[in-house]
Amino acid sequence: MKLKVKALNFETGNIKVVVLNSKDAEKLGQKAGERVQLKSAKSKISKPLIAILDITYSDSLIAQGEIGIFLDTLKNFENLQNHDEISVGPAQTPDSFEYIQKKIRGMKLTSEEINSIINDAISGHLSQIELASFITGVSINGMDDYEMTALTLAETRSGEYFNFGPDVFDKHSTGGVPGNKVSLIIVPIIAATGLLIPKTSTRAITSPSGTADSMEVLAPITFDSEQLKKLISKENACIVWGGALDISPADNILIEIERPLHMDPIGLMIPSILTKKLSMGVKNLVLDIPCGPGTKFPTPDQGRKFAIFFKEIAKSVGIHAECALTLAHQPIGHCIGPALEAKEALTLLKDYSAGPNSLIEKSADLAGILLEMAGKAQKGKGQGLAKEILRSGKAYSKMKQIIEAQGGDPDIKPEDIKLGRFQKEFHAINAGHVTEVNNSIINKIAKAAGCPHSKASGVEVYKKQGARIMEGDLIFKIYSDSQNNLNKAEKIYNKTGGPIILGGMMIERV
Amino acid sequence: MKLKVKALNFETGNIKVVVLNSKDAEKLGQKAGERVQLKSAKSKISKPLIAILDITYSDSLIAQGEIGIFLDTLKNFENLQNHDEISVGPAQTPDSFEYIQKKIRGMKLTSEEINSIINDAISGHLSQIELASFITGVSINGMDDYEMTALTLAETRSGEYFNFGPDVFDKHSTGGVPGNKVSLIIVPIIAATGLLIPKTSTRAITSPSGTADSMEVLAPITFDSEQLKKLISKENACIVWGGALDISPADNILIEIERPLHMDPIGLMIPSILTKKLSMGVKNLVLDIPCGPGTKFPTPDQGRKFAIFFKEIAKSVGIHAECALTLAHQPIGHCIGPALEAKEALTLLKDYSAGPNSLIEKSADLAGILLEMAGKAQKGKGQGLAKEILRSGKAYSKMKQIIEAQGGDPDIKPEDIKLGRFQKEFHAINAGHVTEVNNSIINKIAKAAGCPHSKASGVEVYKKQGARIMEGDLIFKIYSDSQNNLNKAEKIYNKTGGPIILGGMMIERV
Repeated sequence: MKLKVKALNFETGNIKVVVLNSKDAEKLGQKAGERVQLKSAKSKISKPLIAILDITYSDSLIAQGEIGIFLDTLKNFENLQNHDEISVGPAQTPDSFEYIQKKIRGMKLTSEEINSIINDAISGHLSQIELASFITGVSINGMDDYEMTALTLAETRSGEYFNFGPDVFDKHSTGGVPGNKVSLIIVPIIAATGLLIPKTSTRAITSPSGTADSMEVLAPITFDSEQLKKLISKENACIVWGGALDISPADNILIEIERPLHMDPIGLMIPSILTKKLSMGVKNLVLDIPCGPGTKFPTPDQGRKFAIFFKEIAKSVGIHAECALTLAHQPIGHCIGPALEAKEALTLLKDYSAGPNSLIEKSADLAGILLEMAGKAQKGKGQGLAKEILRSGKAYSKMKQIIEAQGGDPDIKPEDIKLGRFQKEFHAINAGHVTEVNNSIINKIAKAAGCPHSKASGVEVYKKQGARIMEGDLIFKIYSDSQNNLNKAEKIYNKTGGPIILGGMMIERV
Repeated sequence: MKLKVKALNFETGNIKVVVLNSKDAEKLGQKAGERVQLKSAKSKISKPLIAILDITYSDSLIAQGEIGIFLDTLKNFENLQNHDEISVGPAQTPDSFEYIQKKIRGMKLTSEEINSIINDAISGHLSQIELASFITGVSINGMDDYEMTALTLAETRSGEYFNFGPDVFDKHSTGGVPGNKVSLIIVPIIAATGLLIPKTSTRAITSPSGTADSMEVLAPITFDSEQLKKLISKENACIVWGGALDISPADNILIEIERPLHMDPIGLMIPSILTKKLSMGVKNLVLDIPCGPGTKFPTPDQGRKFAIFFKEIAKSVGIHAECALTLAHQPIGHCIGPALEAKEALTLLKDYSAGPNSLIEKSADLAGILLEMAGKAQKGKGQGLAKEILRSGKAYSKMKQIIEAQGGDPDIKPEDIKLGRFQKEFHAINAGHVTEVNNSIINKIAKAAGCPHSKASGVEVYKKQGARIMEGDLIFKIYSDSQNNLNKAEKIYNKTGGPIILGGMMIERV
């Protein structure tokens, strides 16, 4: 069928979609969601373009004889213009769709089949609903170690990957605990010993701050691959935003569908972590697995099972991984929010005695594992060495170099970091001791205050579990960029009673 | 966040989608696929409108400060114009999404939960990928009889439903056998006895012709609900296209996603059949279940299990159903394609002796069950009565009345029906007997010839299983509206060797 192109001034993202009038679609025998192939006499592309069909019943949008092509699909045709004639016919369903159905029927996929799914996801030949169906199938039927290995490799091949030599270290966290600014401490500790650690991180998705958000308070974090190579050759370390690099775009496509589905099945989560590390040339990895309510692993037992599985698949893609199950019952340190977390990390790097203890212990635990893996410390001595490097100021010197290399001010002082000028302090109305610090309430308040978009917004927790409190003690503070957001955050505090739960000594009155 | 409306000259179908610039989305803390709520000062609607968020990185499409609203979503706001200001904020995920996740986790849903999913599907509050995930979850984890009953009722409530009194009859087929024009015979047989049979049917989806396509050769099939009521009060029967009525729109929304996913799980199939019948006020139903390769039930055992399940759920929604497992190894009758099938049915109605036998037997079998259910015939005597009504010409008289009531020519003769003028006959190149008639090859050839869009196209099978063939006998014929399509169909015949497989008498040479 010959149709005239009508350019639609809109993008459809990765998926290639074209629109026909319902009457033409009926003539073609095609329904919405099915595939058509497009050929242009003018185009130099010998292979026809495959696109997903959408249908309109409105003749004023797309009349009979017209085909609506979105801007990003139009780019795939050289020289094709509005009103050009194009030939349209039914296209076969790609083989990858059969493999998706195979997974839905509970069968194992071969590496060729997984490659085919990933290639078609990248080229836009699988529709959003087909990918949603695949992700749901994996959520229910799982993936075994062979499949996860194949998926990791296929995702990695979908983008750029780096080779920084045989000894490349990194850390990653499965997330779920607020205030987890440990990367800002671990990277300079490891880099100070001369080890190579090309840390990429994400911005916050559902939390008040990601490592990328906090680091951005201290220095730029957006670099392309050439700039990244220069950073690494200069400082053997970086803390950059992974989103600016073209590493594992196939993983990003899956994540874009997993997120609105609130799905993060282990069969996709492990490949997602490993492909990002593999793309960065990482050979040795410590994985932080926070366990507890609100994290991906409510019990240590679940975290342990995941860790064993993770290590095995890491090994099969050439990464030596060690895992640490960590406490997640309350925030790490006292500060939550991009600027507050950057400030707390910088304070500790400058002055070990400033603490906070939970941040020192957790950072040194994870850094210590990496130092032992690298042979820099004997087994059991890694944490001590990490603390020594931190205490000595060597980690701070290294952090200053990293900040400078990334284009930040190396002499930035904690007190230079701007915090939200709208502030509200909360004081204890009773004496007692802290029995619980509720992460979920903290996240809600911090996000209401403006996190992560407003970097200066956040919260500070003055008293944590076990602390003794006197009536009137300062226990909590909210920072915000706007009075309006501060009010919203304050409202959540008042409605929930706040995240800091006090108890007396009496358990029960009989 | 206050944004200026930019009307997007495009429809998004049932799903409500709005588009933000990526920077505004980041400020809102919202990602693509998440939900936002929209409030307009000008709109009289007190409840905010919920929409699914899409994001663009192109400032020229949607600049910061703008919100792209598609035509069909814009209609939901009274008086809202291009460039008006609107307030946008994050919206909560609807409860129905949690119920979808519950199904994915393998749990049973309550009727309230199913209602909630159906209501949100209808109002556009569930996105395509969420519905795709639900359908995949049902495909893998199934639905029990309680859930299917609730789904049938919820789907029925989503649209219009009719009440034609306590004695309403109907037939339905689970499909998969070519040339199945039995409804054109059964409806007039049943209606001739005075019973009420408001038959709605579909156009072909994957087959060369649906009942609606074939009936349309004889009379118009598109009626609204008022016209339908008049038809029924006049003739106590009709054969119309269900798609023109607003019955069970929720079922249509699910089908629109099931089709491109090639999914038709029993948990959705049974409610889909029953909701359409329930909406038409049907109280007694005979279900034709073709069993064999290429149908939904490859073995009679699978068909039998389905039948037992179907009857139970039908009963729980107030429909008395009987099922017939039927042969599906070769076409019913000889003709495939809208016009050819209409012609074959009309020929039989006019002249019982014209046959074909398979069409008489199958139509009388199914009609006979309905006559027994209605008490018009004793148990075991229904088929005989059906044949008698057909032989007597009473069914033909009734069909003429139905055709006339629907606006067709009641005196149309079989030879008046126009067949494709591009024709190709195939003759046997050897003697032997027919060991197989391949349905799948027939469907491919008929569709290549132009079915179902080109009504005059189709194929005729002259010799069926068991027939003795002499060299040179006419065995197969293709009809098409265009030389080009005839060539395509002929090519498939030559490549596959055709659908009619001949064997000699020898089984094996030792």
